[in-house]
Amino acid sequence: MSEVTRPTLSDALTERMLELIRTGGHRPGDRLPSTRELSQRFAVTTPTLREALRRLEATGAIEMRHGSGIYVGADIERLVLPNPNMRELHAARLLELLDARILIEPPLAALAAEHAGRDEPAALKQALDEARRHLRGEDAELHDANMTFHRATARMAGNSVLHEVVDSLLTVHGPEQREILQIFDDRRRDYEEHLAILEAIEARDAAAAEERMRAHLVDVKTVIEHRLQPPK
Amino acid sequence: MSEVTRPTLSDALTERMLELIRTGGHRPGDRLPSTRELSQRFAVTTPTLREALRRLEATGAIEMRHGSGIYVGADIERLVLPNPNMRELHAARLLELLDARILIEPPLAALAAEHAGRDEPAALKQALDEARRHLRGEDAELHDANMTFHRATARMAGNSVLHEVVDSLLTVHGPEQREILQIFDDRRRDYEEHLAILEAIEARDAAAAEERMRAHLVDVKTVIEHRLQPPK
Repeated sequence: MSEVTRPTLSDALTERMLELIRTGGHRPGDRLPSTRELSQRFAVTTPTLREALRRLEATGAIEMRHGSGIYVGADIERLVLPNPNMRELHAARLLELLDARILIEPPLAALAAEHAGRDEPAALKQALDEARRHLRGEDAELHDANMTFHRATARMAGNSVLHEVVDSLLTVHGPEQREILQIFDDRRRDYEEHLAILEAIEARDAAAAEERMRAHLVDVKTVIEHRLQPPK
Repeated sequence: MSEVTRPTLSDALTERMLELIRTGGHRPGDRLPSTRELSQRFAVTTPTLREALRRLEATGAIEMRHGSGIYVGADIERLVLPNPNMRELHAARLLELLDARILIEPPLAALAAEHAGRDEPAALKQALDEARRHLRGEDAELHDANMTFHRATARMAGNSVLHEVVDSLLTVHGPEQREILQIFDDRRRDYEEHLAILEAIEARDAAAAEERMRAHLVDVKTVIEHRLQPPK
């Protein structure tokens, strides 16, 4: 037996599963046939089928819920994914990631101010209310609320591809961001800067939204650069 | 037996494999232990191990070469990945993808003009020479050369995260882009616009590089919008 068996079969099975989802018109959240039915349909053994399912699961195309079944995954139609294998980000990469956010997020804040539907800024306000409640509380909750604010702003800009890019960037640097929240002064300033961005979006002031988002992310980068410096 | 077995074990194994790669100091291209050794080390059956390996393979963390072995994958340290399950892009998404490129690539062309090392523009020239050779030839070769030009420009900007983002966006809309190349006039114009961008980068003229990249991508979008219109 060769070291790595059946690569072609596993590839082909992955392809057939994707075809089944597409031609069946299945949408994210829809339930798919059971592993038993699938292995019969494709005439393969369960272990072989499961290899293909794990590939699709790893990239968000399907979701395997323990004891429940197989569902179409939320990420199947995304163009861009965060790398699920990222564990830690080295300093230089973290700063590059922030530069990427500084390039992409400010123009999205401007577009959000221009395109936001009447009720959309309410979602931003909700995220900030949630952040305020956790200013002195748990890092994780505050971090989640802050990231919800950034994701929702990117979504309101109306370009789903750029929203996916921002979502991916925010997903991979979650752990580092949480660490940044440890100092209360930074938490407070983050909150106030977010609030100023929201006000610009509510006022439909694209130029101010863009400028405030840029200034905010430059501040975040400055704080992180400061932290990354080895203590003297 | 439940519908979906061992999800936790497969997750844990994936994690242990990543740990093995990291603590072992392995780099992309390095050979990893065989499946036999790995299943002994982790005390799991081969099918269970293989599920974890397929997950890691699907996200580029490892590469399984038929009859040869398991290697650390080129994508293990990426932050952002193209979705490997994308098959076709609908019109609205394709236009959003082009708007994303119009936002990201022009400032990268400016950075490339500012930061390119002395010999770096030669890589761009090489890609364009290759494109010129295929102007009347095969779509696939011309497309590859054009995408090499865009990727190399993004890489020269010096931000690895933004390079990954551009690389991901170019990867997912490959098939549609190839279709666009069918008309010779468009191929020729693409080539000339690329050449003008290269000239601006060679002249270290950041403003011209940015402006020309923007005008080029707006042209590409116009051509695609025209194509997407249903025939009257």
